[in-house]
Amino acid sequence: MASAGLSFENPVFAAYAAYSSVVLLKMFCVTGYTTITRFRVGVFANPEDVKGNKGAKVRLDNSDVERVRRLHRNDLENIPAFLAVGLLYVMTGPSAGAALWHFRVFTAARCLHTVAYLAGVQPWRVLCFLTGLVPTLSMTVQVLMAGAL
Amino acid sequence: MASAGLSFENPVFAAYAAYSSVVLLKMFCVTGYTTITRFRVGVFANPEDVKGNKGAKVRLDNSDVERVRRLHRNDLENIPAFLAVGLLYVMTGPSAGAALWHFRVFTAARCLHTVAYLAGVQPWRVLCFLTGLVPTLSMTVQVLMAGAL
Amino acid sequence: MASAGLSFENPVFAAYAAYSSVVLLKMFCVTGYTTITRFRVGVFANPEDVKGNKGAKVRLDNSDVERVRRLHRNDLENIPAFLAVGLLYVMTGPSAGAALWHFRVFTAARCLHTVAYLAGVQPWRVLCFLTGLVPTLSMTVQVLMAGAL
Repeated sequence: MASAGLSFENPVFAAYAAYSSVVLLKMFCVTGYTTITRFRVGVFANPEDVKGNKGAKVRLDNSDVERVRRLHRNDLENIPAFLAVGLLYVMTGPSAGAALWHFRVFTAARCLHTVAYLAGVQPWRVLCFLTGLVPTLSMTVQVLMAGAL
Repeated sequence: MASAGLSFENPVFAAYAAYSSVVLLKMFCVTGYTTITRFRVGVFANPEDVKGNKGAKVRLDNSDVERVRRLHRNDLENIPAFLAVGLLYVMTGPSAGAALWHFRVFTAARCLHTVAYLAGVQPWRVLCFLTGLVPTLSMTVQVLMAGAL
Repeated sequence: MASAGLSFENPVFAAYAAYSSVVLLKMFCVTGYTTITRFRVGVFANPEDVKGNKGAKVRLDNSDVERVRRLHRNDLENIPAFLAVGLLYVMTGPSAGAALWHFRVFTAARCLHTVAYLAGVQPWRVLCFLTGLVPTLSMTVQVLMAGAL
């Protein structure tokens, strides 16, 4: 079936590509926000980073910086998995409607997770995290069934 | 050659998809186990996580939690690389037999690595880690040769 | 257009596969260098790693080891993103010239970033990091446009 193929003419693939880009751009915002936070609090990880920067210190335990880094690590635990399994899921030939909801829910959940982590609001952060896991796990199980059966 | 293509009708691709799913499900088990461990020892990473949870503390140095996190990070250093290079390797058109052994060895090694890390048994953990590297490196070199030559 | 497809006969795909392999091999060198550094300074992360190894200690704050680990984490924040978005970018059917420069700049920047991080030289490390981000972000935006429009 042509519509299960990897081509921008397949609307499911195009949607996967678009949502993947959004979620990657979100992750790169976290990268940038780490740098912004380091300059705001004047805390860096390497001695060479603070040279000639009066008032800047090398510390690995600043709570603001470490919060952004924990958020970023949570992204690393979830987003590459989504990117990899999402591509395989596209090839199982899902209905466009089902596929779109998988991508939308994941993308929205990860964006809201980022906000909730930075704002430090529970249980919203955990709910966003779990909501993002649902489409990822659903896709993983569907890929497993398509590949193993 | 059709059988080198990305389609569930290509048995090498189907096997790649199935083993990738298994290894991702294993990684999500580690995610869940981190949470279980945090609740068991009552140690969390953010102040908002312990609010209203009597006896829970914010600490970043609990040895049980950090062990699971080091294991998870080792997964992040190896599994996304396998997922990415495995897909490219499928497209080099390997024999089904050779490909299956690459996927099986990696998947088995990472599952056993997880067990060995949680159990804290050496040299088994290192052996599992190195065994998982072998198929990944082999696929990487084959993809490099197919792409560069 | 056949040349936008995922096949080693598409020179853009072949180049993507080759550069992806190079950047993965570079990342596995960092994995190996972590181990070399641990043995050199005699510092390991788990109690079972130092058993029977006289003079080795369990510490998580050795500056040499942590430098390699920070570098490795920076790889994890950038390389899987490149691998995922690069594949989607190949499918947008870019010109071979533009695509090659995206892959070359990323690969060279990440290799030089590794050297600059280990040598502790600023602002070279930051410049290499930012240089590697440029092709990744460029590809992400192009994939977003191809998928969303």
